[in-house]
Amino acid sequence: MVEIPIFADVVAAAARIKPYAVRTPLVESAVLGELTGKRVFLKCEIFQRTGSFKFRGAFNRIALIPEAERAGGVVAFSSGNHAQGVAAAAKLFAMPAVIVMPADAPRPKIEGTRALGAGIVLYDRLREDREAIATRIRAERGATLIKPFDDPAIIAGQGTVGLEIAEDAARLGAVLDQVLVPCSGGGLVSGTALGLSGGAPGLAKVKVHSVEPENYDGMRRSLAAGSRVAAPGGALSVADALMAPMPGVHAFELAKTLLAPGLAVSDEELDRAVAFAADRLKLLVEPGGAAGLAALLAGQVPKAGTVAVVLSGGNVGFEAIAAAVAHWDAKLLKC
Amino acid sequence: MVEIPIFADVVAAAARIKPYAVRTPLVESAVLGELTGKRVFLKCEIFQRTGSFKFRGAFNRIALIPEAERAGGVVAFSSGNHAQGVAAAAKLFAMPAVIVMPADAPRPKIEGTRALGAGIVLYDRLREDREAIATRIRAERGATLIKPFDDPAIIAGQGTVGLEIAEDAARLGAVLDQVLVPCSGGGLVSGTALGLSGGAPGLAKVKVHSVEPENYDGMRRSLAAGSRVAAPGGALSVADALMAPMPGVHAFELAKTLLAPGLAVSDEELDRAVAFAADRLKLLVEPGGAAGLAALLAGQVPKAGTVAVVLSGGNVGFEAIAAAVAHWDAKLLKC
Repeated sequence: MVEIPIFADVVAAAARIKPYAVRTPLVESAVLGELTGKRVFLKCEIFQRTGSFKFRGAFNRIALIPEAERAGGVVAFSSGNHAQGVAAAAKLFAMPAVIVMPADAPRPKIEGTRALGAGIVLYDRLREDREAIATRIRAERGATLIKPFDDPAIIAGQGTVGLEIAEDAARLGAVLDQVLVPCSGGGLVSGTALGLSGGAPGLAKVKVHSVEPENYDGMRRSLAAGSRVAAPGGALSVADALMAPMPGVHAFELAKTLLAPGLAVSDEELDRAVAFAADRLKLLVEPGGAAGLAALLAGQVPKAGTVAVVLSGGNVGFEAIAAAVAHWDAKLLKC
Repeated sequence: MVEIPIFADVVAAAARIKPYAVRTPLVESAVLGELTGKRVFLKCEIFQRTGSFKFRGAFNRIALIPEAERAGGVVAFSSGNHAQGVAAAAKLFAMPAVIVMPADAPRPKIEGTRALGAGIVLYDRLREDREAIATRIRAERGATLIKPFDDPAIIAGQGTVGLEIAEDAARLGAVLDQVLVPCSGGGLVSGTALGLSGGAPGLAKVKVHSVEPENYDGMRRSLAAGSRVAAPGGALSVADALMAPMPGVHAFELAKTLLAPGLAVSDEELDRAVAFAADRLKLLVEPGGAAGLAALLAGQVPKAGTVAVVLSGGNVGFEAIAAAVAHWDAKLLKC
């Protein structure tokens, strides 16, 4: 038995997060429209509280913790966006949060999480087991573990992205043919597909594609195989947020009925998308957040038609974007 | 007699531009909300076709050229955003466009205008009179001059920004107390106030403030004096798009009845706003486009309440933004 969220769970999550989450815009891009021959809409989760979609699922999950268990607070392990999403959501519930982070995580991400009021426990990636540390903290404090993706309430929370896309596309008179969603463990893409599935008429035919880094394309491989299989992994991807080797159990259960075939992009395509977003779209997007845009720019969806691209996060240092722009400027951005 | 647009002209302009202009989003900023204690909404004209609001007015004005005069095309003088707005709008009407630009205008702006199909006539800022050149072109070709701001149809077109803010604020359940609008000749700010004036109930009390660079604060001075007066000018402002010394006749006629007192910001405040937008808001905004944000960050509007800030343009080289971020990073952006 696998517990999976249904459309009504996404609707309930939307009501819960509404007073706290940013209603991020769906923006049509004239630049991308001219370049690709499609109508292109961008779902800008880079403007979400804490700079990525992760706040949605974290808030929805924490809201469901029974009153009696709240005093123990929450614990999560993450080096990035999930850490900040959990910390921000816990703060709104006035609950203590402990985040287990690798000692070599980027300083800004550690500082950002601390600034949100969370306690930080650093661990050595090579010599310590973060799950064991989190288990110990749960036992000692009575804390609730907030998983990054493999949890129905997290998936329902991320699903509000799909619900909002459906509402805004209908309002803007757009009938979507494809939606491109960055994918790590699959919480966002499966939730988004669920949120879209109960949306406006005409969305029944929308194809929702996961987009992963090459070698971290567990969802693509699992969808092709019909069951969960791991990607090879290997060298680190430039998209540090998308390195889960395999989709979560709950996410895949939804994904296998709701998603179109998965897509994958190279590090070069991700880097180019980051540069393009900055130079031409005026948006700062982290590499993982730009995976859907990378697939679009690489020509992985048919010409013509209407596409929505989820820009899932923007937590990257400005210097990294400046380097990408400098690298690609002469080669590509004049198109 | 001065001909001024009325609210119905803005509504008519909105219908004209709808199939071609981007419906730019009004986005709530959690970051600015926490920093300022206000609800803060950003009207993102940086996503508009050609990267600034100028397309709106140019398209509306060109749409009103009588059929018999269309073959002669259009002519405009501009070194920046107006040039691209006119070129893009003329292209949509399949009308020839000639843009008179200073020979020392930034290469990307010249190239961008040329890429939109316009003919470019370069002139020497110090030795030639651009108005005389434009007059000659009008005579030779029968072209219609498209002024940058001092024209009722241009003002009505820019007014669609206010109309959209009113609609989206109502949809988002926000009652605006202030709207901050970058100002050069006053077409955008007066049009925006006009568009807001006939909007949702509750907007009757909204205060619309022009924001100009110090020493180019002709609107502020004119509003205070009750008649058009010139600002001193002098050293170039970092906001190259906002250097009109005095509001236009038509714009001021509207402004004096519709606007709250004008605001002004220093070059340092503009530069800081550009850096803040990139580092914290994930948005690339040109200095002139960031004037309203600069006034907000400088504490020029009361704490509490709800404000909309128009980010009017994003046409700036990435290097300039990188320099601003590097300069301000250590001093300010950790707030």
